[in-house]
Amino acid sequence: MQIIAIDAMGGDYGSAPIIEGTLQALNEKKFKAVLVGKRDIIESQIPLRYKDSVEIVEANDVIEMKDLATDALKRKESSIYKAVELVRDRKADAVVSAGHSGATMSLATLRIGRIKGVSRPAIATLMPTALQGKYSLVLDVGANVDSKPLHLFEFGVMGEAYVKDVLGIAYPKVGLLSNGEESSKGNEVTKEAYKMLEVIPSFKGYIEGNNIFDGSTDVVVCDGFVGNILLKTSEGVADSISKIIKKNVRKSPLAITGAILMRKVFKILKKQVDYAEYGGAPLMGINGCAIISHGKSNAKAVKNAIFQAINFSNSNINKDIEEKLKELKSSIVSEAQ
Amino acid sequence: MQIIAIDAMGGDYGSAPIIEGTLQALNEKKFKAVLVGKRDIIESQIPLRYKDSVEIVEANDVIEMKDLATDALKRKESSIYKAVELVRDRKADAVVSAGHSGATMSLATLRIGRIKGVSRPAIATLMPTALQGKYSLVLDVGANVDSKPLHLFEFGVMGEAYVKDVLGIAYPKVGLLSNGEESSKGNEVTKEAYKMLEVIPSFKGYIEGNNIFDGSTDVVVCDGFVGNILLKTSEGVADSISKIIKKNVRKSPLAITGAILMRKVFKILKKQVDYAEYGGAPLMGINGCAIISHGKSNAKAVKNAIFQAINFSNSNINKDIEEKLKELKSSIVSEAQ
Repeated sequence: MQIIAIDAMGGDYGSAPIIEGTLQALNEKKFKAVLVGKRDIIESQIPLRYKDSVEIVEANDVIEMKDLATDALKRKESSIYKAVELVRDRKADAVVSAGHSGATMSLATLRIGRIKGVSRPAIATLMPTALQGKYSLVLDVGANVDSKPLHLFEFGVMGEAYVKDVLGIAYPKVGLLSNGEESSKGNEVTKEAYKMLEVIPSFKGYIEGNNIFDGSTDVVVCDGFVGNILLKTSEGVADSISKIIKKNVRKSPLAITGAILMRKVFKILKKQVDYAEYGGAPLMGINGCAIISHGKSNAKAVKNAIFQAINFSNSNINKDIEEKLKELKSSIVSEAQ
Repeated sequence: MQIIAIDAMGGDYGSAPIIEGTLQALNEKKFKAVLVGKRDIIESQIPLRYKDSVEIVEANDVIEMKDLATDALKRKESSIYKAVELVRDRKADAVVSAGHSGATMSLATLRIGRIKGVSRPAIATLMPTALQGKYSLVLDVGANVDSKPLHLFEFGVMGEAYVKDVLGIAYPKVGLLSNGEESSKGNEVTKEAYKMLEVIPSFKGYIEGNNIFDGSTDVVVCDGFVGNILLKTSEGVADSISKIIKKNVRKSPLAITGAILMRKVFKILKKQVDYAEYGGAPLMGINGCAIISHGKSNAKAVKNAIFQAINFSNSNINKDIEEKLKELKSSIVSEAQ
């Protein structure tokens, strides 16, 4: 049975959605939840019937969003530090946190350590596409800036392993994000990365921004600077469209009636693009499993992040990444010779 | 009266939307249109009443989308080459082309030349925001990859000049696109560019992807690799949302009725996000005016691109860019000392 460490104090809305999401997950799946944080706050929210599946680990400090990620290593009494330590000490299989993502990232990287062959861990996020139930995994979306070609190559290998081992896609398509599809496009870094990625059989070459959402690509490789911008850009576009629709619907009783009749469609749309549906973002490349959740996670998002942690730590992904990197890196070297 | 050279042969749909858009523009504004291309094809589409406002310049070659931009300089009989030459020779005030954008860009840069102080011309595009009638100007969206800090600084100066001189925004806000708002964010290039951009009074610091669409920023500065990706990403998101809605509406008669009642709202939305409404993308930094239009431009997009060319070449923008760069670059140098 998987043991999942959950930072009960992180997140913009305090412990309530975290604990509620944990209980919802326990209602649906068998696992052991280790909630890390202030004992009295956590205990008061756990009904007695969960006593066998929930454990509490006391932690009296909380790293706030405004705190520096660089201080995280010193704050050994914080909930995220202690939750990460549980994975480091092999007392938990995975850690889930909706708290300070920079702190989670650096703690997970430095305390748990990297998989052999991984230069830089990357945050991977699932993006919804126009095809229902089909996602594309984009990495990196913010762990690294100024990625080198080798880093992008490693992101490709890690992303492929995730969609194969965790999502069960047997023949994934890996694309390198660029400013055009032709192999003559790209910048200095992607041009070098392109050559390296060609040793991965599932690598399909360059893709463009719109291919993230058309269902054509399973893994989208990019630098974290670019990944963060594209993530925020997509949120911005979706937000802006929703605002324009709402504002104009309000002006006309006819349109209000129309919107009511279309309610089910909007609900499907919302569900299809809602990040809460697919949980958090795995930090790929560490010697364990850490799922970074959105600070604004509701209970459903927390529940799905926990399921992601269970699926991830239940899979063979980290071993596969290590082996694949070893095998492919040697073929890059031999091709370069 | 402005003289606008129009590449009548470029564009994915041949000469028809180009010529139709030109005639529509002539119906609304007084200017001289110089249509460049195959005389017989053009002539047959121009009613006699336009004879005083339209001139035809014969060009028997057309650079196709599949052709290499690098060949453009050699193909002196092509419509785009001849249209650009009209601006170079001061026989036209501006050139508009919906043809091969790489060819237009390199011809405009190499034949017309750069403004003194501009290292690299940039393509600037207007992006719609959630606020009606409010756009943000994003540059560069594809002319350059691997931009240096100084290039981003120049993009900021050019963008500011455009929104001031052409759009009439007296106090614009200039933002540098990054992976977070805090000044500690960014990559190597944006960190350097940030320091340079601070000499521009309207520079407001870093912005994130979502700020492009919330109406908070007038000028968004980024490298062309990033700009191209964000452009395609936004198209992809909007497309994907529209597909999800359409697909699900079709499944239910109730929703179909709803969509009919909401038709006006969707029309407003479409108009607000339609690039045809704001025309083409100016190539900023050349010693003249070149408007690069979407290959799929319809007549309305061509008309608006022509209006953009008229407004641009009627303004003092290029002189302002030259002066501003001279003034600001000296303050960057003195600050660095």
